[in-house]
Amino acid sequence: MRYDIAIVGSGPAGLSAAINARIRNKNIILFGSADFSNKLIKAPKVNNYLGFYDITGTELKAQFEKHMNVMDIGVTTERINNIYAMGDYFALMVNEKMYEAKSVIIATGMEYTKPLKGEEEFLGRGVGYCATCDAPLYKGKVVTIIGYNKDAEEEANYVSELTEKLYYVPMYNGNYNLRNNIETIKDRPLEIQGEDRVSKVILRNGELTTDGVFVLKDSVAPNQLVPGLAMENEHIKVDLNMKTNIQGCFAAGDCTGKPYQYMRAAGQGQVAALSAVSYLDLI
Amino acid sequence: MRYDIAIVGSGPAGLSAAINARIRNKNIILFGSADFSNKLIKAPKVNNYLGFYDITGTELKAQFEKHMNVMDIGVTTERINNIYAMGDYFALMVNEKMYEAKSVIIATGMEYTKPLKGEEEFLGRGVGYCATCDAPLYKGKVVTIIGYNKDAEEEANYVSELTEKLYYVPMYNGNYNLRNNIETIKDRPLEIQGEDRVSKVILRNGELTTDGVFVLKDSVAPNQLVPGLAMENEHIKVDLNMKTNIQGCFAAGDCTGKPYQYMRAAGQGQVAALSAVSYLDLI
Repeated sequence: MRYDIAIVGSGPAGLSAAINARIRNKNIILFGSADFSNKLIKAPKVNNYLGFYDITGTELKAQFEKHMNVMDIGVTTERINNIYAMGDYFALMVNEKMYEAKSVIIATGMEYTKPLKGEEEFLGRGVGYCATCDAPLYKGKVVTIIGYNKDAEEEANYVSELTEKLYYVPMYNGNYNLRNNIETIKDRPLEIQGEDRVSKVILRNGELTTDGVFVLKDSVAPNQLVPGLAMENEHIKVDLNMKTNIQGCFAAGDCTGKPYQYMRAAGQGQVAALSAVSYLDLI
Repeated sequence: MRYDIAIVGSGPAGLSAAINARIRNKNIILFGSADFSNKLIKAPKVNNYLGFYDITGTELKAQFEKHMNVMDIGVTTERINNIYAMGDYFALMVNEKMYEAKSVIIATGMEYTKPLKGEEEFLGRGVGYCATCDAPLYKGKVVTIIGYNKDAEEEANYVSELTEKLYYVPMYNGNYNLRNNIETIKDRPLEIQGEDRVSKVILRNGELTTDGVFVLKDSVAPNQLVPGLAMENEHIKVDLNMKTNIQGCFAAGDCTGKPYQYMRAAGQGQVAALSAVSYLDLI
């Protein structure tokens, strides 16, 4: 099945895009978090969202949730690793699983993890973001997984069935639910090094010799998410219609620039959705 | 007294600009209508303003009103005829009265009256928008007032004290509260004609020989309101920060382009206010 519009991100921009696309009878899928937005639910007080005054982030989130529920819009909580423009559609990758959509709206916010030194340089040459997808390439080899959340542990366990050696570098505290053949490295990764391909990870207190590195994080920079997406400094380059440089790909909210504000984000989400609707009319 | 920010228009864009500017402790004045927005209060149902579902325009207006009241923001219901960029400030003209502001946000929507044929051509050469301001120029002469609302009647009565002859062409139905020396013309004006200066108004069923014509309407096109304001077709040209081509002058909402939507307007109003705040920090 191919969706009309895939919306990636469930902050105010993504939610506003979703309700507007749904009102226009589009077949949509919304990827995000069950909590919608970490930033929103942690906001102690919101006064500048027109129509609501002296409201907590959690209360505003509850209003949004009511709106989504009554319109029967759910959030798909799978994490998109990559989005590829295929010409007349987009392929959205969730590890080995693929979703298809005729258009996409990127509304991923600005709370993503900065790449490590060397990470972008060696991407595709030993560095990857989907361990389960690329595991077969590392059969009998040494792999390092840098995990930013507990989900990464599952991927590590799966990959460790194939590799000769697996290092797991957790970027969070807690108990790690890992197989015995995995070596947990409690150190801070500083850089990924190599020549043609990755050969090691430099840590604050040492280094790991490795054939591959998977960096498993909550969200990645937009141009890592969508190869070829034009940026302006750290933001997605958009025009007033929320069009990006890629046909059929729109963006909205904090990822398009400052000021980082809910009302702006919701307004842009609306424009992105209506621009996507116009785009769909043409293709 | 010179305001930090003058906001012209009280639809969602203007209101959102006002609350954001007030939160930043700016000294603001908001010009608009007591009803906020004619378009809004007539909306039968709004479903695409994130956080409110299945709400009438009047109910949404009531939510906005509550927000404005609790922040103690009032609407000044005087009609701005012209805004002049004076270098380091703006002069906002309400007939003979002047307001001053360091920056302005234009949020006047798209429901303005289209100019008559010849109106723009003869502007300043017999055509004017403020009858009471220019009345002294027409002492003992023949003046035609094309009135789009009842407020125009008061101006007509005032001007008729000076003129030799005053024609009043009402563009609305109802009873006209006009002095006896005013001749009411119930016909449709088609064109303003003349050579160097205005000499007549062509009506559907006749013509009026006249020395001056005042066109008194609810709102005028943005580039008539702000001389020198750059347009793109019928919209104010803005960048993503809601800056216009005039330093210190910002715009938001329907007057900046499509889609004409409340959420987009409110988001743009927020951006315009924060851009004005940044501008004020620099001057």
